Amino acid sequence: MSSELGIKSKKSDFSNWFSEVCSKADLVDLRYNVQGFVVHKPWAMRMIKHIYAIFEAELERRGHEPVLFPLVIPEENLEREKEHVAGFKPEVFWITKAGEEELPRKLALRPTSETAFYQMYSLWIRSYRDLPLKLYQSVAVYRYESHTRPFLRGREFLWIEAHDAFATHEEALRQIREDMEICEEVIWKRLGIPFRFLKRPEWDKFAGADATYAADTIMPDGKVNQISSTHDLGQRFAKAFNITYVDESGKENYVWQTCFGPGIWRIVAALIAIHGDDKGLVLPFEIAPIQVVIVPIFYSEEERKEVVDFCKEVEQMLKANAIRCKVDLRDETPGFKFNDWELRGVPLRIEIGPRELKERYVVLVRRDSGERIESKLDGLVAEIKKLGEEILENLKRRAVESFEQRIAKAEDREEVAKALSGGKVVYMPFCGREECARELQEVTGGGKVRGTELEPKKASGRCAWCGEKAKEWVYVAKAY
Amino acid sequence: MSSELGIKSKKSDFSNWFSEVCSKADLVDLRYNVQGFVVHKPWAMRMIKHIYAIFEAELERRGHEPVLFPLVIPEENLEREKEHVAGFKPEVFWITKAGEEELPRKLALRPTSETAFYQMYSLWIRSYRDLPLKLYQSVAVYRYESHTRPFLRGREFLWIEAHDAFATHEEALRQIREDMEICEEVIWKRLGIPFRFLKRPEWDKFAGADATYAADTIMPDGKVNQISSTHDLGQRFAKAFNITYVDESGKENYVWQTCFGPGIWRIVAALIAIHGDDKGLVLPFEIAPIQVVIVPIFYSEEERKEVVDFCKEVEQMLKANAIRCKVDLRDETPGFKFNDWELRGVPLRIEIGPRELKERYVVLVRRDSGERIESKLDGLVAEIKKLGEEILENLKRRAVESFEQRIAKAEDREEVAKALSGGKVVYMPFCGREECARELQEVTGGGKVRGTELEPKKASGRCAWCGEKAKEWVYVAKAY
Repeated sequence: MSSELGIKSKKSDFSNWFSEVCSKADLVDLRYNVQGFVVHKPWAMRMIKHIYAIFEAELERRGHEPVLFPLVIPEENLEREKEHVAGFKPEVFWITKAGEEELPRKLALRPTSETAFYQMYSLWIRSYRDLPLKLYQSVAVYRYESHTRPFLRGREFLWIEAHDAFATHEEALRQIREDMEICEEVIWKRLGIPFRFLKRPEWDKFAGADATYAADTIMPDGKVNQISSTHDLGQRFAKAFNITYVDESGKENYVWQTCFGPGIWRIVAALIAIHGDDKGLVLPFEIAPIQVVIVPIFYSEEERKEVVDFCKEVEQMLKANAIRCKVDLRDETPGFKFNDWELRGVPLRIEIGPRELKERYVVLVRRDSGERIESKLDGLVAEIKKLGEEILENLKRRAVESFEQRIAKAEDREEVAKALSGGKVVYMPFCGREECARELQEVTGGGKVRGTELEPKKASGRCAWCGEKAKEWVYVAKAY
Repeated sequence: MSSELGIKSKKSDFSNWFSEVCSKADLVDLRYNVQGFVVHKPWAMRMIKHIYAIFEAELERRGHEPVLFPLVIPEENLEREKEHVAGFKPEVFWITKAGEEELPRKLALRPTSETAFYQMYSLWIRSYRDLPLKLYQSVAVYRYESHTRPFLRGREFLWIEAHDAFATHEEALRQIREDMEICEEVIWKRLGIPFRFLKRPEWDKFAGADATYAADTIMPDGKVNQISSTHDLGQRFAKAFNITYVDESGKENYVWQTCFGPGIWRIVAALIAIHGDDKGLVLPFEIAPIQVVIVPIFYSEEERKEVVDFCKEVEQMLKANAIRCKVDLRDETPGFKFNDWELRGVPLRIEIGPRELKERYVVLVRRDSGERIESKLDGLVAEIKKLGEEILENLKRRAVESFEQRIAKAEDREEVAKALSGGKVVYMPFCGREECARELQEVTGGGKVRGTELEPKKASGRCAWCGEKAKEWVYVAKAY
């Protein structure tokens, strides 16, 4: 199961580089014999488990509780909210048979779980005392996508979905702010992925929402990657599923709802693409399956045993301090091992040879910068923790720098077209009309109005695309 | 979402008691509108997440790595091992449509994942250096069962499946011992559920296995609950999926395989049933979603604030020591709260009233024994940890006592029938013939030969059922 050596594509050749990293860093295997479904290999799963754990802790800290709803949703549930079913039905996988029997009604694999959750919410919510209700589940969703790509678009897609119900719209809007805070905390502060949280235009809302807010990051090819979204569902589903509560005065009201979907798969795609380099993955310390790899270096069989023993001593010390580490004892050259762990993005490598053994110190090598640091055993744990933080800070600095460089202001058609074809995200004054957005998309070969900031920035002059009176500044980009 | 008050059935009326606990302790909601699929509520999910985490750590400590395989398995994969498909096909859910299209070939929802994993194993395993290969996934499996019961039999069933491949049969057999050790460590030592690890008779093997080994615990009605199983797959799947490796001498061989399936759902059923009492759940400290609940007691509004402040001070102290705790500030009487948390099985309750406030101590009440313990704040954390261990020891002691009492030796038909109808598991000398086992099952209304110990105990006299020459001692029981 060892990976073939090295990435052949440069990161500047992004699409090929991304595919190579996905398979050579042992993240997924695409050879499973159902199109659009991938096998998640251990290196990806261990990373993904850490990301889920961080998100779940942040959700729970803010009053969400975990649940698990069935995978299957009856057709009639999907049909209860008209826009929702119109949006999702074309991509639903249907179970129609069990054993030799035809099922009396077909069952959808969840494409998203509003219509599973909310029929139960109508049973669970009775009075204002039952509110707010904030539940989440960590699951895969299933959509019959035609073009699939690992971690970006798949027929089986890993995410979290949080479904919240409130007494008032104000509380629902506060929840949207809170969801944004969670994204800020996890995706930016802990994983080092910069993003903009945007309010999507009317015509690009989630099917069944009053408004959609979403986090876009920018991939190295200039296309945006929506890594999370929160929907203000208003009272649409509450009315469709009859979710009401009795308030303190005894009056019955519909609840207000939001749903929040951090796209775990999409976040992994961003991690790979944004932090990675020509050698492969570069992982933030906190989510690296192995945080420190120890490579023994020896020139004779006599040296071997002593060097390996010292490596194991260091490993034990680090493990006792909850650092995930491993001594690489494979029968390969140190050079092979260096390349292999660099490809997998292990944040720190420790090299131990006869000199280190003799003087009882180690050499640490940073994956992000290649910098070499010597450390005595005494103080090694503290040094590693400090380096872990420094690596994250460096990744954040680099990521935010290229993020900002990827955004170009544009004032007219030519600038818009030029920026988009040059791999930039455009920030421009916009008239607000769907017709204009559609024309822009057609003419530029995929440039989409992604939306405004949460507090839209008013524009005073002309729409950069159509020249009519501008309403507000928007981001425009090609998108995954 | 608050539970209705109290369990009405006594545990001696086991079937009704179990159903009441499942819904009133807020574990599952059975009102989801697809038969056999349940909603897992937060109290169950939090417990289940702890159980998964314990198992996963034990698997990883022994060299397993996490993966995630697709939910869907093409029909032709299922058909590659003949006995396997015969065993599982009648219970498979089939996806036949996506959007408006009929799929060219139907896809099974995984009923178990041998046929998903092993086609990839034939790609991944090349040489002896790739062995052993030990991978697991934590997922739900889907089976079209006709009679369903929460945590015991469901159309969506939570488990872990570990799939291992080895160079030799000896290593595969060692793995079966290791799986048994993991069960011993997690299910018995950490969760306090006693079981016997048995070798199933030939006619009760997993479809496609050379031999099946399984852990049976005994439920309060005397029926056994299979909580885990390990299958010696021999080289059957290796031949069906062409999984070979080249050994050190350059010769190509088929691998030897095992698979291990701890039934997380089944383990939850055992936890509920075995440790619970007339008041509801009794949870081991390690997996309780809330380990310590703090109930403030006050007689006037003046007292209220000070008592609550003291409660919060204690809560902070416990949380800082990684104890999962909560102050119950609901507008309900202390009596209501005591009952509610007892129903949910919280291991320790802290009561804090004006006297405790004044003298700065707390009263701890054990869920398992009702015992009251006073503790100063200083030393409270250590006291709680000690009590957590004592509670587990007490649960284990009680569980093993009733487990042993439920096993009756029987020497003839009458004794066998009497023991089975009296809610016992029978231990008896057996002739080893399937025909005899079938007759026994028919006559006793469900008594099944569950198998021998791992090292079968030879029997010298007559088969307790048919009177022919006995071969070995077996366990016989009705089963879930």
